[in-house]
Amino acid sequence: MEDFDFNITIVGLGLIGASFAMALKELNPKNLWAVDIDMEAIETAQELGMIDKGYLEPEIPLKNSDIVIMCVYPNLTIKFIKDNMNYMKVGAIITDTAGIKKKVLDEINSFIREDLDFIGGHPMAGREYKGIGFAKKDIFKDANYILTPTNKNKKKNIELIEKIIKGIGCKNITKVTPKKHDEIIAFTSQLPHIIAAALINGSNKDDNLFTAGSFKDATRVAKMNTELWAELLMENRDNTIKQINIFEEHITKIKNAIIKKDKDRLEALFENARNKREAFIEKCMK
Amino acid sequence: MEDFDFNITIVGLGLIGASFAMALKELNPKNLWAVDIDMEAIETAQELGMIDKGYLEPEIPLKNSDIVIMCVYPNLTIKFIKDNMNYMKVGAIITDTAGIKKKVLDEINSFIREDLDFIGGHPMAGREYKGIGFAKKDIFKDANYILTPTNKNKKKNIELIEKIIKGIGCKNITKVTPKKHDEIIAFTSQLPHIIAAALINGSNKDDNLFTAGSFKDATRVAKMNTELWAELLMENRDNTIKQINIFEEHITKIKNAIIKKDKDRLEALFENARNKREAFIEKCMK
Repeated sequence: MEDFDFNITIVGLGLIGASFAMALKELNPKNLWAVDIDMEAIETAQELGMIDKGYLEPEIPLKNSDIVIMCVYPNLTIKFIKDNMNYMKVGAIITDTAGIKKKVLDEINSFIREDLDFIGGHPMAGREYKGIGFAKKDIFKDANYILTPTNKNKKKNIELIEKIIKGIGCKNITKVTPKKHDEIIAFTSQLPHIIAAALINGSNKDDNLFTAGSFKDATRVAKMNTELWAELLMENRDNTIKQINIFEEHITKIKNAIIKKDKDRLEALFENARNKREAFIEKCMK
Repeated sequence: MEDFDFNITIVGLGLIGASFAMALKELNPKNLWAVDIDMEAIETAQELGMIDKGYLEPEIPLKNSDIVIMCVYPNLTIKFIKDNMNYMKVGAIITDTAGIKKKVLDEINSFIREDLDFIGGHPMAGREYKGIGFAKKDIFKDANYILTPTNKNKKKNIELIEKIIKGIGCKNITKVTPKKHDEIIAFTSQLPHIIAAALINGSNKDDNLFTAGSFKDATRVAKMNTELWAELLMENRDNTIKQINIFEEHITKIKNAIIKKDKDRLEALFENARNKREAFIEKCMK
């Protein structure tokens, strides 16, 4: 497609990077390259036609790429750009997929070359698995995508990134400040992972015989990439602690209604939950 | 099938009762009747062939039923049997599906006629919807089922109920005391509902744009039958409070690791969660 007549490099062929590659490939970019430290991942991606060519060393692809898509952990996103920005083509657009945005934006904007345009992004997509073997282009289908543009970004570059995001199948693109992103994501993403972990950490032998869907769903994401999530939580510490505190208050409200044998109060709290969940799903359907 | 040559009455044509009827019908019992206070539900069940005949008044079906399956809320289970046991056929087997067992068993055993055999049961099956319209016989497919037999129950009757449970598609039947059932179910079922409610109660406008699967799954059961769940929690109060406290301790461990910036500790807690979740799923697959 003429529209995507660019050279694109994906950095990191994990679950997100490889899924991004698969979805991007369908848009027929001029060249789709990847950089990874794992030769096996590169070979797999080449063999399966996810990318045109993969590299262990970033110099060659970066020199020729109009767009660079970072698909690695937050701190590595910062380090990689810092270490390799001198290879990058003049005027290249860089975007990322890290799950926290304020630190990533602040640090990268503190050192990045003036001609490079770094646009922060975060796809609301993932699976409770890691690695190229679980990549699927469908993870972006109808997904939400957050962009955190700043006034340093060029309008036409933001529009191009948005076109790519829509092109890989995402439904809603929401633009917020990096700070706002981190506040909300602590609730919608980091808190559910913490809850799932805390719930399953309290489990005992043979509990599996007493479970139905509610327990299974509530603990699904406890099977997480522990290293990644520990980094995400640590780098979004204040917001995460705040959201845990708010959640604890809501749990306490329910607990107190039970302790006080206040069934009306308990039903009211559940009614509120029910209504909020229904409204949430309705909005998701739009 | 000759094996199920019994008259069976289901009391309550809600989600569980109607699903039970649909699954039972395939076993070809001699007659499958239902009792409900809602004429519309009865007509629907008759029209769709879920039952042979439905009744607003329980006298006629109970007089001729070898097996009665109670599919109503816990307190109504107790009340219905108390109010109607004089109609019941000599030697009839009664089983129930209430989500708490100690109170149900204690109360019913305190007044039940000597010749009647009440066997407590709890299918680990359900949906986040209520009513006959959402009934599906598949909800029992590969589900867990708990029985809480006592030494008052006749061995051959327990075996017959087990045959029915297997017949409707359940995979594992676990026999425990009513007390043990209530302790474990507070963790595996009541706690996940409380957590889902508490989580969504803390949500804000437009959070939906920042969500992926983790938040959706974590809040699914917040769309619950609020009256039923308030009753279940109130009637299993001590166990539920205990499980909330244990969960809060596990949340606090994670929060403290984040507060202390102890990334190793956080990763260890997540590793534990990950391992427990993997072991849990493996056991569920068996």
